[in-house]
Amino acid sequence: MRLVFLGFGTVGQGLAELLIEKKAELARKYGFKPTVVGIADMLKGNVYNPNGINLQIALAYAKAGKSLNKLTGKSIDGDALAFIKQAKADVLLEATYTDIKTGEPATKHCRAALNAGMHVVTTNKGPVALNYPALQRLAGRKKKKFLFEGTVVSGTPMINLIRTTLAGSAITEIKGILNGTTNYILTKMEEGMTYDAALTKAQKLGYAEAVPDADVLGWDALAKVTILAGVFFGAKAKPFDYSCKGITKITPQMITKAKKAGKRFKLIGRVWLKDGKVKASVGPQQVPMTHPLAGVSGATNAVTVTTDTLGDVTVVGPGAGRVETGYSMLIDLLHIGGVL
Amino acid sequence: MRLVFLGFGTVGQGLAELLIEKKAELARKYGFKPTVVGIADMLKGNVYNPNGINLQIALAYAKAGKSLNKLTGKSIDGDALAFIKQAKADVLLEATYTDIKTGEPATKHCRAALNAGMHVVTTNKGPVALNYPALQRLAGRKKKKFLFEGTVVSGTPMINLIRTTLAGSAITEIKGILNGTTNYILTKMEEGMTYDAALTKAQKLGYAEAVPDADVLGWDALAKVTILAGVFFGAKAKPFDYSCKGITKITPQMITKAKKAGKRFKLIGRVWLKDGKVKASVGPQQVPMTHPLAGVSGATNAVTVTTDTLGDVTVVGPGAGRVETGYSMLIDLLHIGGVL
Repeated sequence: MRLVFLGFGTVGQGLAELLIEKKAELARKYGFKPTVVGIADMLKGNVYNPNGINLQIALAYAKAGKSLNKLTGKSIDGDALAFIKQAKADVLLEATYTDIKTGEPATKHCRAALNAGMHVVTTNKGPVALNYPALQRLAGRKKKKFLFEGTVVSGTPMINLIRTTLAGSAITEIKGILNGTTNYILTKMEEGMTYDAALTKAQKLGYAEAVPDADVLGWDALAKVTILAGVFFGAKAKPFDYSCKGITKITPQMITKAKKAGKRFKLIGRVWLKDGKVKASVGPQQVPMTHPLAGVSGATNAVTVTTDTLGDVTVVGPGAGRVETGYSMLIDLLHIGGVL
Repeated sequence: MRLVFLGFGTVGQGLAELLIEKKAELARKYGFKPTVVGIADMLKGNVYNPNGINLQIALAYAKAGKSLNKLTGKSIDGDALAFIKQAKADVLLEATYTDIKTGEPATKHCRAALNAGMHVVTTNKGPVALNYPALQRLAGRKKKKFLFEGTVVSGTPMINLIRTTLAGSAITEIKGILNGTTNYILTKMEEGMTYDAALTKAQKLGYAEAVPDADVLGWDALAKVTILAGVFFGAKAKPFDYSCKGITKITPQMITKAKKAGKRFKLIGRVWLKDGKVKASVGPQQVPMTHPLAGVSGATNAVTVTTDTLGDVTVVGPGAGRVETGYSMLIDLLHIGGVL
């Protein structure tokens, strides 16, 4: 299996580290022996080598700020699309920056790779939230896989859980804490901090961006909700078609009041069926302390899936992180390899 | 895929109901079209019909206490082993009664079916807790599958979760609330009931048996811990080789004291690695309120898996139930069918 990395930031590097660290085990246990033949990054340069790139050296170059063009192999002129067209590979690993409003340029990358006969694994929410039906159809026509475990709750199994271990179940609702940053802020506010102090702390810890809008206004959770609605309920709506409220209007007073009533404020992303129609929303909700989602604190994520076979099944795990998101791509690769 | 049911009590009937209810969907979505060719139950009689048994009628007979021998087909003289030997089928669905001390007669059933060239799906903890290595080796030699999702946390994905969606991860610890009855009793005690009152209520609700030993002394959780230790850590120990304490010595005073310290008593089954060796135990533990397991109340089960790739991943879901456990067999069948 020949792999091409597009985007070699934290997620791509996280996967590269796992491929190095687990090389012997993956070969022994699953007969899985991938070769990385290309790496392209907007800032770090690119290299293509059909004989395989030494990942250890590539990682060292990336970390030292040294151009990938200097690695053994050839570098390809032009943009990412040119790279995809010239690189001969079996799988494109798309880990470029998410643009939740346009889904670009990642959607173009996915489309080009599928058209070139590659499977696509992505951690980029943009293409899946905005163009899932079209990309899935294209993948189907090309008999290739389009996988994206990392777009929702990082490597914590969510997409694959529903697809494989809950197969044959009818899903009527999916709801959860889909954004770690806001959950961290709400947890700190419950401990007594103001919203501003909690946000500043989240920024210091690297949980929140300098411009925290995508998290605190609910957009990141909204992208994930849209993905779940599209993939598991066949919805065709775009993210901003759904109602979306963030946590910026939650006050310490509201949190105290909820606590007294045995409840806890959580930013809940939710998709459900009502009279056969798909509904979805993101907004703060008061969750009863007895619900598994209430106990999820800090930057952790959690999702409750309501099924006809098992009632509620909840999964709690990390929603972000270098290795965690890198791992989501590894699990998708193992599925493509058909080794599970 | 030709199926034979061995044991047609609540679990077998739960699966039969799902196969009827989901027939069209399973055929459409997965091309999965099984035929039930045999049903044998110690109390309800048996029937074998290579042309397929009408499940709807079989369920009606079972519920009305009418002998299965009267269904269209032939009934086979002798015991379950004779039935397995004479029935031509692809999969044995083993759902007879668990004997955690001997693992019999279920182990013999599994062995006979594998030797006859059938895959085996079981919800019976006995054979897996006591004879997993031998049965797995036999299955390997026969190139058949030996699957048992329902033995731990019912149909809530646990075994398959670790095998498929967490594949490639190194597991260092698995711990959880593996018995719903004791968790229900502890929850009620926290609400102010005595142990005796809570047990009586659990018995009235059908959660606890008249002789509640297997639950309250921790044996049921111990069987599950032994399964997890054997399957995921390669341990060869038998259930009673591990330390096992139940909840019978927990007093309301202990619960109140723990609560004041921000903790909650839970009966925790645990498997972990220490200096390269596999350790396992069952016993009451004081879990901090901030841990996902603390929030799991009533008859619900939950398991936290500690991995090198994702840190802790917790799954919360039903640990028992007619349809829930029946579903565990359906998901195993879909895996055998290779349709996921």
